[in-house]
Amino acid sequence: MNAAALLTELRAAVGEAQVLQGEACAPFELDWRKRWPGKALAVVRPGSTEEVAAAVRACATHGASLVPQGGNTGLVGGGVPDASGQQVLLSLQRLNRVREIDNANLTLTAEAGCILQTIQDAAEAQGLLFPLSLAAEGSCTIGGNLSTNAGGTQVLRYGNARELCLGLEVVTATGEVWQGLSGLRKDNTGYDLRDLFIGSEGTLGIITAATLKLHPQPLAQMTALAACPTLEAAVSLLSLARARAGSGLTGFEVMNAFSLALVRKHLPQLRQPLAESPWTVLLEISDSESVAHARSLFEGLLEAALDAGTITDAAVAESQAQSKTFWHLRESIPLAQSEEGLNIKHDIALPVSAIPAFVAQTDAALARQFPGVRMVDFGHLGDGNLHYNVQAPEGVAPGEFLKANEAAVNAIVYDQVGRFGGSISAEHGIGQLKREELAARKDPVALHLMRQVKKALDPQGLFNPNRVL
Amino acid sequence: MNAAALLTELRAAVGEAQVLQGEACAPFELDWRKRWPGKALAVVRPGSTEEVAAAVRACATHGASLVPQGGNTGLVGGGVPDASGQQVLLSLQRLNRVREIDNANLTLTAEAGCILQTIQDAAEAQGLLFPLSLAAEGSCTIGGNLSTNAGGTQVLRYGNARELCLGLEVVTATGEVWQGLSGLRKDNTGYDLRDLFIGSEGTLGIITAATLKLHPQPLAQMTALAACPTLEAAVSLLSLARARAGSGLTGFEVMNAFSLALVRKHLPQLRQPLAESPWTVLLEISDSESVAHARSLFEGLLEAALDAGTITDAAVAESQAQSKTFWHLRESIPLAQSEEGLNIKHDIALPVSAIPAFVAQTDAALARQFPGVRMVDFGHLGDGNLHYNVQAPEGVAPGEFLKANEAAVNAIVYDQVGRFGGSISAEHGIGQLKREELAARKDPVALHLMRQVKKALDPQGLFNPNRVL
Repeated sequence: MNAAALLTELRAAVGEAQVLQGEACAPFELDWRKRWPGKALAVVRPGSTEEVAAAVRACATHGASLVPQGGNTGLVGGGVPDASGQQVLLSLQRLNRVREIDNANLTLTAEAGCILQTIQDAAEAQGLLFPLSLAAEGSCTIGGNLSTNAGGTQVLRYGNARELCLGLEVVTATGEVWQGLSGLRKDNTGYDLRDLFIGSEGTLGIITAATLKLHPQPLAQMTALAACPTLEAAVSLLSLARARAGSGLTGFEVMNAFSLALVRKHLPQLRQPLAESPWTVLLEISDSESVAHARSLFEGLLEAALDAGTITDAAVAESQAQSKTFWHLRESIPLAQSEEGLNIKHDIALPVSAIPAFVAQTDAALARQFPGVRMVDFGHLGDGNLHYNVQAPEGVAPGEFLKANEAAVNAIVYDQVGRFGGSISAEHGIGQLKREELAARKDPVALHLMRQVKKALDPQGLFNPNRVL
Repeated sequence: MNAAALLTELRAAVGEAQVLQGEACAPFELDWRKRWPGKALAVVRPGSTEEVAAAVRACATHGASLVPQGGNTGLVGGGVPDASGQQVLLSLQRLNRVREIDNANLTLTAEAGCILQTIQDAAEAQGLLFPLSLAAEGSCTIGGNLSTNAGGTQVLRYGNARELCLGLEVVTATGEVWQGLSGLRKDNTGYDLRDLFIGSEGTLGIITAATLKLHPQPLAQMTALAACPTLEAAVSLLSLARARAGSGLTGFEVMNAFSLALVRKHLPQLRQPLAESPWTVLLEISDSESVAHARSLFEGLLEAALDAGTITDAAVAESQAQSKTFWHLRESIPLAQSEEGLNIKHDIALPVSAIPAFVAQTDAALARQFPGVRMVDFGHLGDGNLHYNVQAPEGVAPGEFLKANEAAVNAIVYDQVGRFGGSISAEHGIGQLKREELAARKDPVALHLMRQVKKALDPQGLFNPNRVL
């Protein structure tokens, strides 16, 4: 590869000032979890779709591979360069305009580098809702959200990033621009290229803009906490809540006792309204009528659940502020577990009906092999998505436990996931982290089809090589 | 091609009795609209996924192409063989089992040949809803629905067939089986093969089974008719209805005055509760609480719309039976226009916000070029999907008008669709009917990507050649 010639062409493509080298590249080279330090040939910061296309053409000419990056908040090492010093890091951050909001069509068109929160705010300013919501929303970009098909806390009602996207603009491996920005709810004119690029983690093309679905803002949002004696009871509560609240049910999160015990220990300032119980559920109802209507829905639902023995106790938030404190409890679990020390994390999905048996059997298998191990089980039960994390036994150094046992723990957990028809990556993606697991565990016919698709759309292997596949 | 050897292998694959030839093939060779009479080498009726795979391997060996067919209710000639007598028609009708219903996970797994209504009924028997609903539901199959990404009357709330499918089982062009039947709401393990097969009209693989999303049955469903002075007013009513009813709004259909005049003329026995007005909207609310709650939502909404001048009159159905008569009016339009004589049909989608200007400009352009032409404009306004049909002027023989002017009418309509960022096929697909239009009008980068995908997944070109692409 003629690096000097490539750099000259990249500078011509995006402007001298937007091709970074050396120290200036550092913030782009290390992922957010600090697990995969890389080294880029250069960081290129195009300011328009045409500049992205020109940069891709330059890389194609010289056979240089590109790693696209948004807010660099990914959890699987999919957005950072490898250590070779030969890859071009393509930062989309300067493509950050909201191009259009169409109120009557309930759509918003934004460039890939738009911060998720900027999009939420732009929708809200029009009295509308862009429901994608996740912890990193203040710094992640919509391009990254789409590349990883991000999930978050509102999937139950509104779907993943995929379901919130109607159209894309994409720079292909030949440096052409696919003009697929569409605000259409129905369009059966050929293959679904949009969904092929969504979730492909930058390995098939560079998403430069997207047309997103908006929803009406609900008039009221209300949360409740409910104590469940068993995980089976929590699943029954979910069925009941779905039947009673219909699509008004926008959140259904579950937390085991140890998760909340860690919050109690490390964040004692957070009031926990319910006494400890084996499982606690956070429910959220969004209502298009009124606060009073949402409250009466909740009261009817929780009364029925108490009568059925599905829950043993419940607290309905008295105000918007208290609703936030309930969410805050749930969202504090990752922090509390970090305070407790390193742990072995799993972002898995299962059929909802399989979750009680999965947890019972897998908890038991882990306890047999690693006596005293502590399970931090929580997640989006309504979507069948568990963050099923394994904490070292009391008194055992977490870092050493992790180092010694991560592979064995993963084998137990992922074997069980396979047995129950689940997924080893519910919402975080594959990146570098799970590439080998994917190759070992995905249906071989699917893997073959995926490799054929990759070859078809990126025959030179320019886009984010050795990620996903 | 050695036809005799192929037939021997096909008989070995699916059994002697399930390979039809000659007269027995006739019902499979002609499409439902009787537009594309074809001639098959044989009709093969496998009884299991393994038999489908074996039939595909036999065809691959002999280089014979396959046309998959479900209920043969398609509208674009995508499911019938060409006239060569060399293609194998693969009927999926014997794969007709509902394999599993998982109540807690809200999923149903069915084989491709299941009749849509059978699936609706199986869900209903469990107190659940499979919301895909369309005119052909008594004879179309779920495999065909997925192959064409069918739409229908509930897309506004529940999405197209695509949004109702979680996983697929597919026989690939190598005769292997991709085991992608998943009941997961979240699964970010690689490329979205599912959505690539959905909507590909049998050109990339043979869908043999699917895991589908179910929803809770709403407790009440209620419809209303509303008279709108303009199409702009109808779009305003849609925004208001979305804000007030949230996702309770499950239907929003629009009909112009001429559509309902045709119903009045040809089906005078159908009572029309509102006086003639430029546009009539049918609204449907599905409610998880009660009939009374749905009624009070409607009353509040329609009162606000009357106050705003968005509507001039309205009628809320007094009963479930009356709700059905309202739907019946809407659903009778295709029959009424057939009675009036042949017409030039368009199944188009547009951004909802663009529809009033599109209709005004396109109606005017057609009237200029074809004085006296009569527009049958109706459709799923909530999804931006119009059935925009052009009827011959009064006194002009419809068949002659169609023959003489179809190409010129299509050119005007599709040029306008392109200008407004619309789609020439909202829900019916491409098949044979719109293959050339697609090649002429689709973004060339997208067409190139589609061809690459086709080559990657079906390098021999076995599956439904010369359809879509």
